[in-house]
Parts: sequence; structure tokens; C-alpha cells
Amino acid sequence: MSSFGTLFRVSTYGESHCKSVGCIVEGCPPGLQLTEADVQVQLSRRRPGQSNLTTPRNEKDKVQIQSGTEFGVTLGTPIGMLVQNLDQRPHDYSDMDNFPRPSHADYTYLEKYGVKASSGGGRSSARETIGRVAAGAIAEKYLLEAYGVEIVAFVSSVGNISMPLKHACADVEDPESPITAEVLEFLQNVTREQVDATTVRCPDPSVSQKMADRIARARDNHDSIGGTVTCVIRNVPIGLGEPCFDKLEAKLAHAMLSIPATKSFEIGSGVEGCKVPGSKHNDSFYRKPNGKLGTKTNNSGGVQGGISNGENIYFTVGFKSPATIGKEQPTSRYDGTDGVLAAKGRHDPCVVPRAIPIVEAMAALVIMDATMIQQSRATARSLLPTAQ
Amino acid sequence: MSSFGTLFRVSTYGESHCKSVGCIVEGCPPGLQLTEADVQVQLSRRRPGQSNLTTPRNEKDKVQIQSGTEFGVTLGTPIGMLVQNLDQRPHDYSDMDNFPRPSHADYTYLEKYGVKASSGGGRSSARETIGRVAAGAIAEKYLLEAYGVEIVAFVSSVGNISMPLKHACADVEDPESPITAEVLEFLQNVTREQVDATTVRCPDPSVSQKMADRIARARDNHDSIGGTVTCVIRNVPIGLGEPCFDKLEAKLAHAMLSIPATKSFEIGSGVEGCKVPGSKHNDSFYRKPNGKLGTKTNNSGGVQGGISNGENIYFTVGFKSPATIGKEQPTSRYDGTDGVLAAKGRHDPCVVPRAIPIVEAMAALVIMDATMIQQSRATARSLLPTAQ
Amino acid sequence: MSSFGTLFRVSTYGESHCKSVGCIVEGCPPGLQLTEADVQVQLSRRRPGQSNLTTPRNEKDKVQIQSGTEFGVTLGTPIGMLVQNLDQRPHDYSDMDNFPRPSHADYTYLEKYGVKASSGGGRSSARETIGRVAAGAIAEKYLLEAYGVEIVAFVSSVGNISMPLKHACADVEDPESPITAEVLEFLQNVTREQVDATTVRCPDPSVSQKMADRIARARDNHDSIGGTVTCVIRNVPIGLGEPCFDKLEAKLAHAMLSIPATKSFEIGSGVEGCKVPGSKHNDSFYRKPNGKLGTKTNNSGGVQGGISNGENIYFTVGFKSPATIGKEQPTSRYDGTDGVLAAKGRHDPCVVPRAIPIVEAMAALVIMDATMIQQSRATARSLLPTAQ
Amino acid sequence: MSSFGTLFRVSTYGESHCKSVGCIVEGCPPGLQLTEADVQVQLSRRRPGQSNLTTPRNEKDKVQIQSGTEFGVTLGTPIGMLVQNLDQRPHDYSDMDNFPRPSHADYTYLEKYGVKASSGGGRSSARETIGRVAAGAIAEKYLLEAYGVEIVAFVSSVGNISMPLKHACADVEDPESPITAEVLEFLQNVTREQVDATTVRCPDPSVSQKMADRIARARDNHDSIGGTVTCVIRNVPIGLGEPCFDKLEAKLAHAMLSIPATKSFEIGSGVEGCKVPGSKHNDSFYRKPNGKLGTKTNNSGGVQGGISNGENIYFTVGFKSPATIGKEQPTSRYDGTDGVLAAKGRHDPCVVPRAIPIVEAMAALVIMDATMIQQSRATARSLLPTAQ
Repeated sequence: MSSFGTLFRVSTYGESHCKSVGCIVEGCPPGLQLTEADVQVQLSRRRPGQSNLTTPRNEKDKVQIQSGTEFGVTLGTPIGMLVQNLDQRPHDYSDMDNFPRPSHADYTYLEKYGVKASSGGGRSSARETIGRVAAGAIAEKYLLEAYGVEIVAFVSSVGNISMPLKHACADVEDPESPITAEVLEFLQNVTREQVDATTVRCPDPSVSQKMADRIARARDNHDSIGGTVTCVIRNVPIGLGEPCFDKLEAKLAHAMLSIPATKSFEIGSGVEGCKVPGSKHNDSFYRKPNGKLGTKTNNSGGVQGGISNGENIYFTVGFKSPATIGKEQPTSRYDGTDGVLAAKGRHDPCVVPRAIPIVEAMAALVIMDATMIQQSRATARSLLPTAQ
Repeated sequence: MSSFGTLFRVSTYGESHCKSVGCIVEGCPPGLQLTEADVQVQLSRRRPGQSNLTTPRNEKDKVQIQSGTEFGVTLGTPIGMLVQNLDQRPHDYSDMDNFPRPSHADYTYLEKYGVKASSGGGRSSARETIGRVAAGAIAEKYLLEAYGVEIVAFVSSVGNISMPLKHACADVEDPESPITAEVLEFLQNVTREQVDATTVRCPDPSVSQKMADRIARARDNHDSIGGTVTCVIRNVPIGLGEPCFDKLEAKLAHAMLSIPATKSFEIGSGVEGCKVPGSKHNDSFYRKPNGKLGTKTNNSGGVQGGISNGENIYFTVGFKSPATIGKEQPTSRYDGTDGVLAAKGRHDPCVVPRAIPIVEAMAALVIMDATMIQQSRATARSLLPTAQ
Repeated sequence: MSSFGTLFRVSTYGESHCKSVGCIVEGCPPGLQLTEADVQVQLSRRRPGQSNLTTPRNEKDKVQIQSGTEFGVTLGTPIGMLVQNLDQRPHDYSDMDNFPRPSHADYTYLEKYGVKASSGGGRSSARETIGRVAAGAIAEKYLLEAYGVEIVAFVSSVGNISMPLKHACADVEDPESPITAEVLEFLQNVTREQVDATTVRCPDPSVSQKMADRIARARDNHDSIGGTVTCVIRNVPIGLGEPCFDKLEAKLAHAMLSIPATKSFEIGSGVEGCKVPGSKHNDSFYRKPNGKLGTKTNNSGGVQGGISNGENIYFTVGFKSPATIGKEQPTSRYDGTDGVLAAKGRHDPCVVPRAIPIVEAMAALVIMDATMIQQSRATARSLLPTAQ
Repeated sequence: MSSFGTLFRVSTYGESHCKSVGCIVEGCPPGLQLTEADVQVQLSRRRPGQSNLTTPRNEKDKVQIQSGTEFGVTLGTPIGMLVQNLDQRPHDYSDMDNFPRPSHADYTYLEKYGVKASSGGGRSSARETIGRVAAGAIAEKYLLEAYGVEIVAFVSSVGNISMPLKHACADVEDPESPITAEVLEFLQNVTREQVDATTVRCPDPSVSQKMADRIARARDNHDSIGGTVTCVIRNVPIGLGEPCFDKLEAKLAHAMLSIPATKSFEIGSGVEGCKVPGSKHNDSFYRKPNGKLGTKTNNSGGVQGGISNGENIYFTVGFKSPATIGKEQPTSRYDGTDGVLAAKGRHDPCVVPRAIPIVEAMAALVIMDATMIQQSRATARSLLPTAQ
């Protein structure tokens, strides 16, 4: 369905060429100071056309809060939000429309629904993510105010150009963890300002220009390229996540793989960490100044047994190269005849810079919902006479 | 929560030392021939003690169907299933109990619930997966009978020993896809018999012995090691998966990351495929003999825009090295004092061989639920007078 | 939450004075012909100001479909709909605002949310029902086209003036059923045209004028009065409703009691039928011309064991007298001081005539969702080789 | 489905002749002292055979907690519970099996599932309610310990013999509320001990013997009779219930109409109260000694705008006469041929005495879930810096 969450839930609507796209956010705590400006900042980061690396269509994307707030404060009732679609005309007919785009949703949507939207896989448009980002901005604001939670995502690789976040563990018999203390330190300190300092949204100056060049090369080739986004969540309360099916990392993986064009999810030391023996991978405990236990390393990525342990949560999401490219592709038409497709117009050669606020939004939605569920349990327990 | 699924839903209960573990399966179609033997086969594959590579505790794990069938046929009503716990005694007290095991659920459970089960993170026990496997076996049987769906999982790596499923793409500017035609052919043909031919459950004889040796070395070192499981789902109906939040790969990622000890999920060409330009990564269409469109390659992993396209679905799940090891680990006790923990008894040095039926079960649960949801939509559409 | 349904789900937003009220409808089958006119007809029936019996505010309530359709056909994607609020100004401050209205939501909303909307129990406004009616109109259209389902609600009583639908059973030892063959015949034939023939929306000319007079008297007294709405659903497929917690009558009761100002729900012979012995209350079977079994009587109200049996479903919903009245009421202010409240402006003296399309909408939502769930089960069963 | 609740959720399984019936309770707060004795007390009240008024089968119904507690305290993990079915043999074949029982679930189950259980509408058996009662007993214990919530249900009518709880309002133009101060006083004080003092479970000695006689007459006639159950919930926290679709009375109505054989639900002054003008029906406020506002009357039944207001919640549920009777009924067989059905064996002539703990259980489940949802919102709000 188009809904996500249990107590803090967003439902979204909208395709590329309909009147508006939007969402309803249910379960937002009452009493949160909230205006459209709080939401707009992330929508604007999501917007295309911010650099010559991304698609130059200039979508305005001004959010309008419809309900759920009064005098700049949330009422606790559903928050309706919408963004007008400025271009509502189904596009001009061309031979392109006879082709399902390879690796795009055109064909599967037609098979699933038996109805062909003029924009192909209409609901699969990136504009669908506007509702997510709007809802995520609200969750993020609450989490920051109530707990000091900080969420920062950044581009960690483009094509084969990567930030040095993980060491390969392949060539050693009993390798050390791929996550060094320096990387943990970096994750503790990276800011959105650093991320937004370059259009490619990679905070590592040693590779950001190379990434920009790689994207430019794809653009110039009428081709496309993928990459990865890494995200850190700091100051997470201990105890979030539900054992068994709704482990915190399972919800994060669900959230991330629901973003268009994603291919992979890795938490903590990730797939490389699976090569490390337990004796080197386990995160030993120590007593923190506040009396709680902390871990000396953080290969777990802030989650143990599906439950947050108070350390930073970090994970990496892989995005494939965009399917729509100007380069000629031999492929079949809907009717099965062979042809050559070359998409007209300009298309986004790489989605990862724009995916940053989407990853942050989905992370915020997961943490927010988990927080509200755990708040209920903790409060319920505290009211028992035996709790003291 | 401890429930998974919308129309085909499983709820599970049980810790390591309680009376029984079990589940309720809601929404199973009526009229399916089903006996305990159908379920037992996968439970027995899940059982520890099948080789000297896995933990030698001999759990019997005999499933008892409580309800929902009569004369060997499902009624359509909830199917209750349980497996007795033979060892219900909380274990003997020792100094070990003063330590939260590093990278285990002991500490987070205590923080989350404020109650310490005698078995530490009680619900995080691997015995919790019995309910999943039992439910998955039913889903799998239905899918095979109704659609011919086949699900085969296998161990694709242990430590740094891997099956050659993916070529690295790092060193080339515009690399080809990491997934070759040979690999796709292998995925089309691999069988459970091949998988079960070795105790390590890797169907590739060129690496299976090395994997077994790697696990044996971990065992001998009182240490542990991780690995990956790859799973292929064949003959999947086209059109499964719900756009936006419940994309098929999002549900699969959720399902897989909910299995204990998992760290990563990659679908199709995965994270390596993100390095490949669109012109080489896109899966071009062709007309299949049955008139439907197919794709020449399958970097998408059988899913486009979140919806199955009829090609084989395949994905890889990373499992970390088990947290409980005999080797000494300096770490803190619950009370914050430092100490050295060395787990007594014998512990599973590597979980991936036993994880095979669990991965298959979770895959079956996802596909089953998605199938029932899509069946509803397709039927609803077909009843409209305009549908013809 | 503000969502209703599993496969066909509506989420609503909006208070009395925000920018717009609206909804998202998820799960609508693709291929349904749908325009705003299909929705508007029920919204217009819901609108106040249609007679001098109801509140004369002239709300325009023009629905705007935002998404989910193209060229007048549903895509299968979420349908966003909204209605602008023309009066978005929080009302003028007055002493009235110091009082929580007796039997209104003002006080409970303040206690629940800790935030006082300028319109008191903002979300409890009758405008919240716009989203329900819009969603219900879509469900209704599908059900009519796919199954010929007809839903007709009407005012069956106002104050102590009632249509003669049920005989009292109190004074006889072993009474006959309160539902006569004539009543069943009436329910089989009543039409919306008959219902809308009078402003009070009672299709029985022998009592409709008395009802109108009763409402007029309440209006002239600056007082209010309650009543009941009876609803019949015809041509319901057999087999709807889920045993145990989601019996069809349980979902209908949930749906109806979620409408503002409702106090009661009775299905079939209702509470009066509980006085009738089983031998006279049981609905005996006979073979219908189509070979299916039907029942000679219909005390069950079309539902047996929680599942529709193909007979007409009918039920009655009680609505209390509106809480906001012009008449003086001694009561406390929020601060606990005593005072006298007399609501200014004109208020609806009786809600039942306007409640007709709301009851129909909620009935349609329940039947639609149950239909889609049962379609899935029936299709799933039919695909088993053993099903033939 | 067979699940109920959001944060505190029960899933049940079991038919009349399977191995066991049972449930899984998810979301129970950790730290609650709980043993099987806490659950058994309500199961024993539900058990048939307690008097010569109810069916004399002696079901033992000993509950066994499978998981979720240790040392008599809940862990916060799912609580599995089961009760063995002592009679697991499908009954002897007879001509009775050729008939779908009129007004029973036999026919609709067959149509819904396409599979005929040997016990007819197997899942519609009253044994299905065991899981509800077991789960409700846990909810009830929590609510009592944490909030002092008390739930008392009692038989308020059998056939046409009623407790004088409501005055008829039919014959007066502007009637007073049917709920008098004496009735409110009675509801404030009635206890389970008073209820259990007679086998008919009516705490009013002026009518309980007449009710018993009425049931005895039905039994002697091989017939059956219906009745009503009234339930009061005291000390309910203010603020429970979710506006719009999940109003507290909507959830209660859902819960009650999901109990087998129910026909009606009325909250507060109910359908009779709908005849009373607003000026006489509104519940005026006053300041209570604790500073909170209370209402002088309670026609609302403790709920305003769908949200609890701190006054006693009370409602009445109608149960029809049981469908299975020994008396001869002319009706059709499954094959459409006419015949005469006379059920063999002894059958319960009236379910209301046994329904008492079931009504209490469902009430507890609704209040418990609503409490946990509201606890989350209140806690979330309290953590905002602006909340102070």
C-alpha cells in the first residue's frame, strides 16, 4: 500500500502528471511547533535542477499544509500536505511511448494494473517521494526537539569512486573490522552543511570532484551511473525496534529499499563485516560517564538483536544507474517487435545527490514510529506498582 | 510486533526456555493438502546438530499442527502450530550471566523491557525462527502447487571464501554487469538436493570444502565466522509488489533483515551493479515464446519499479559472525565493572548453513502475501464491465 | 487513526477551519470509470443548507480529484481528493469559547491532545465526514458495476416518531419476529429517489411530515432532536466477512459507530429480535431458482456467523440529538467556574437527514474491503490443483 | 482476520474438534505479575456446565501459558496460551450433517471457504472465544494494577424480562433521559460477586429468578432464547480513543459485534436516548474535587467525540437466541431438498450467562489497546520543550 508506519504513519498520493502530489501524516504528537518552512527546507534539497549534474527541470515544489496545525503548532490531528504539479499535461505522443523502458516500471505497471498511464509507470515517478520527504521533515523535527536526534546522509560513492569508509577484508584470513575508529569519528561529526557544500553531496573533498566528473561523463555520454548513500543517525534513544519481524534494521531496510532505484542495504560493518571473525567483530562494552553501557567499537551499527543500543546507527544504501538514458538501446516494444529506444529530453544521469533528503526522510519515519511504540511500552511498564 | 504479513500473516511466540515455541498462520487458502510432514521437512533442515560444523545440541523440533486442517486439508481458518521445548530449565547460574554478551541482544533487551530473562535476550534466541520456518513451509507448498514457484537458497560465501557469483566492478571505468549469463543459468538450475549435498550447504564443489574448513577453523579457535546466503525464486507471477512503500524488494529486505544476525541485503546485481552505467545495466526486453515480454539480462533481479516482472528473483543476505564465542573477550559486566567473558558450552561457529531454510521461509512468506494481494486486485479488475 | 480498511483503505484529514478537507483512497481497482461527478453527487447530498430543516450554512463542497485517474479511468494508484474550506478563519472570540460544550468533543479533545483548537474539537467537526463520503462514493460505484450491489439508507425515526419497521416483542411470551414479510419487501424495493423525495429523507409518507414537524419544533425551541437511520444493502456476494474478530457485522458496527453522534447499531431483527425464541427467529433455508440456498425469513440481516449469506443486509443506527443548541444550558467553564452557555448562530437541530450519505458511504467501504479480501481467498483456492 | 488490536494484540486459533485452542498476546507490558491462575478465573467463568441452565458438557479448559513470562512476571515478549480440546473426534455422522443449521454459520462457511469442516462452521464454535477470554484476562489485570480500571458485565435481560435500566421514551413529546441517577449509582457499585450470585448472572434479585425460569422454559421446550448483557467500565483514564474511524465506541462496537450471536450495541443512553432533545440529553459539566471536569449526568456513556471523558463507560449488547435447537425445524438440506432438522444432544438454551466473561474480555482488550496508544501520544507530547 501507499502507507508506512504504525503510530506515526504517512500515506502518499500522486503521479507525475496529476494535479498535485501529497500526503497525510497521522499520529504526529500535538504541541510541536511546525510551519511550512520546516518542511520546505528538505523539499527544496530534494528538488531537481539544483546543479548542472542533475536534471534541469525546475520544479517549484512549494508545500502547502492543509490541516493539522493552528497558529504554527500541531493539533495532534492528521496533517494534510500537498505540492501542486505544475506540468499536468500528459506528454506529447511519440514512438518512445511504444517502448517499455528497460529496467523501468513501465512494463510491470502495465502488467500489474492492466491500465497504462500516459506517463508509463506513473506512480513510480520520483515525484512520489515528495510526500515522503514532507512527512520525514516533521518526524525529524520532533526527534530533534524531543531527543536531539540528528540524521545526516551523504553520497559515499558514485560508480567506482568511493569514500574510504570501509577497508576490504577479502585478502586476509582473519581480517580486522572494515570500520575504523577514524570512520566512526567522521560519522560522529559530519554535518549537513558539509554535505551540501558540493553539488554531488559528498563531504569528502578528496573524492567529491571525481564523483562530479564521473556524473558529468555519464551525462555527456547520454548515459547514467549509480552510487551509494550512507546515513548516520545520532543520539538515538536506547530500546527502539521490535524483536522478531520488526527489528529496527528490518524496518530501515524496508524503508530504504522502498525508495526508487535502490538495490542494497547494509547496516554497520555490512557485508564486508561478515568476513570478520566474532572475536574481532564483537563490540565490547564499557561504562559511559552517564552510567549506561556503551560499546568501544560499533560494527553493529547501533543495533543489537534488532534493538537500538544508543550508539550511532549507520547504514549504506545502493542506488542503480537511472534507467532512462538518451543513449540508444535495442529492445522490444510493448507489442513484442524489436526496435531501438533513445529517450528524448534531459534525464538525471545520477540520482544519489538528490536521494540524500529522501534517505534522511525515510530514516526519520522509521525512528519516529519506533520511538512512539517504545514510549508506549516504557510508559505502560512504569505505571505498574511493581515497576518501582 | 511478532506478526508478519497482511492477508497471509504469521504471528510467532516463544523464547529459548519456555514450554513451547510456535505460531499462528492466518489467511491460508482453504483446500490445500497439508500435513505435519510438509512442515517438518523444513524444520528438520533448520535443526542444529546435523553436522560437526554446527552446534551439536540435538533439538528434536517435532511440529504439532493444532488447528486449521481436517483430514489433511486446510480449512481456511488459522493454523496453530507448536514445537515443544525439551530444555525448559533456565540454565545454571554462572559469572557469565553478569555479562551482557558483546554484539548480542542481552543488553538491549534489558534496556528495552526493564526485565532480564534468564536466557538473556530470550526472544532473540534462534528458536524464535521455528515459527517462521513452519509458516514458510505452508506458503511454499501453496506457491508450488498454485504457480510452480520454486525457492532455493544456498550458502554463497563464508568469511572471505565466496562462490564466483559476481565479478568485481571496481577497477574498470565503464564495467560490465557483475552478473554473467553463466550465473543466471546457475540460478535457473540450482536445486535443494545440490544444496544439501554438503553440510555447508554450498552447491559449488569448488569452494564448499574450503568453506567447511573455514568454519572448522573458527570452531577450533573457539571463534566464529559470518557469510552470505543467496536465494533464487523461480516462476514468480508477474505483478507482485505494491508501489511506493511496499515494493517487493522492500518487503524482501524487511523479511531478510528480520532474521537474527543479518547485516545486508542486495537484490539482483546488488551494490556491485551500482557501479555499472545504465547503458550496460538496463535489462532489454524481448518477446518470449508465450507472448509476454522477458528481459535478456536480469540485473534487476526480477523486480522493476518494485513489481515482479516474471524473471527469476534473486538476492543475497549477509550474516555476521555469531556473537557468542568461547574465546575470551574483555568487556563490561551489566554493573559497568570490567571483566573477561568466555562463553561456556559449545556454540554455533557459523549460522549460514542453518539459515538456509529460514531465508527460504521468509522469502515464501513475502511472495505468498504479495500474491494474495495481487490476486485480489486482478480479480477485482476482471469483474468490471469495462475490463473486457 | 484516521484510516479505515485493509485492501481498500481511506485515510482522511481536515478540521473545520483549515485550508481543505480530503482523503486518500488506496487500493481502488484499476479500470473503473471515475470522474468527479461520481463523487460529487453524494457530497452534495451530504451538504448542509439543503432545506430549512438543516443548518443553513452554504458549504460548496466541490471535490477535486488530485491523482489516481487518467482520462476518466482509475489507474489503481492512490486517489487523492480534496474539498476546499471556504471559511478558514477561526471564529470570533466570545465567552462561548470559555465553555466546553456539554456532550461535545471540546473537553475530551483538550484532555487528549493538550492543545485547544480554536474550533474546539476541531477534528470532530462534521466536515471530517467529507473524506468518508468521497471514498464511499468510489467504493459504491465499483460494487454496483462489479456486483450490482445497491445501498439505500433512510431516516427511520426522529424523536419518538418511527416508521413501523419493527413490532415490539415485549408483551408476548413467545413473540414472533419483529421483522415482517412486508418490511422485508419494503427493504427490497426502497430507492434513493423515494428517500430524497422529502427533505427529512424518510420514504414513508405516513410519517415523514410528522418527522419534519418534530425537527421544526426542535429548531424553533433552539433545541435539537435525535433519530435513527436504517440502511439496506442488496445483491451482496455470499461469503463476505472474516470469522472471529472481523465478522461483517462487527466491521459494519465499527464503521457506523465511528460516525459522529451515533449511539447504537442493530443488525437484522436487532435488540427486539433477541426476545424471540430460536424456533421463531431462525431463518430456514430453501433452494432458490439459481440453485443456491436462500432463507425464507431474514432475521439474521443477511449475515450468519459473521459472513454474508446473500440475503439483504440491513441495520439501524441511532444518532443522538446534536450537542450544540441555542437554548441556555447551565454548565462549567474550562476553568471550573459555573456559567450558562447558549450557543450563538444557527445549528443543525437534527443530523439524521444529512447522515444518509455518510451511512451509505461507510457501508460501501466495509463491503468493498470485505469483497476484495474474499476475492483474494476465492481466487487463491481456485488455483489449487485440488480445487477442481 | 483472527487478530485484534494495534499495540496490544491478540491472535487466536482453534475450532471445536482440533487439538487445542489458543492465542498469542503481543505487546503486553513487561513487568506484570502473571500466572495461569490469573487467566483461569475468567476461563472458568466462561466454561459451560456450571448450572443446569447452560449446556452440561464438562469442558475442563485448563490454560497453559507457553511463553512470555518467567518467574511469574511478563517479559514483554509474546504470550502464547493454549487450552487442550478434550474431544478431538469429529462427531458421528448422522442425517443432521446434511443440513446447514438455520441461522448458524454452516452454510456461509461452506460458501466462503469451499471446504466443509466436520463440525460445520468449525471456527464459529463458541470455543473460539477461549483465546479472547484468556487475552482479556491479561489486559484486565494490567488495567486494574496500572489505573484501577474495573470491568463488570451482567445479564440485563432474557427474552422480554428486563432489569429496569432504561425508561421507555416513546410516549412523551420531550422525554427525560432514559438513564436515571439510580441507574448510574447502580452501575457505579455493581460487583462481580453480585453478578455471580445467581447462575443467570443478573445482579437484580427482582428479576433474576424470572430470567432463570425463562431459560428453563426454553430448555424444556427444546427451544432457545436471547437476551442482553450490560457492561460498565469504571476508572477509565481520560483521553482514550482515536478521532474519526477509531472512536472508542466504534472499537467497542466492533469488539462486541465480533462475539458470536450478537445483534446490537448501544452506548450510554442508547437508542432510547436518541428520542430525547439535546437540552435534556446533554451532560452538563461541573468541577470535581480533583480539579478535573466531570459531568452531572452520563447519557454519553463516558465517551464524547469518540474519546473517554473519565466518567463510567457503559453499554449494552444484544445476543440472539441460539440457532441450534432440539425442536423440529422444516428447512433445506445442503443439496436443496426439503427436510426437517431436530438437533440431537443437549444445547445451550441461552448464551448470555456464559457471555459475561467474553464481554468483559473484549472490553478489556479495547481499553488496553486504546490506553497504550494514548500513553504513547501523551509521552511524546511531554518530551517537547514547548510542552511545559
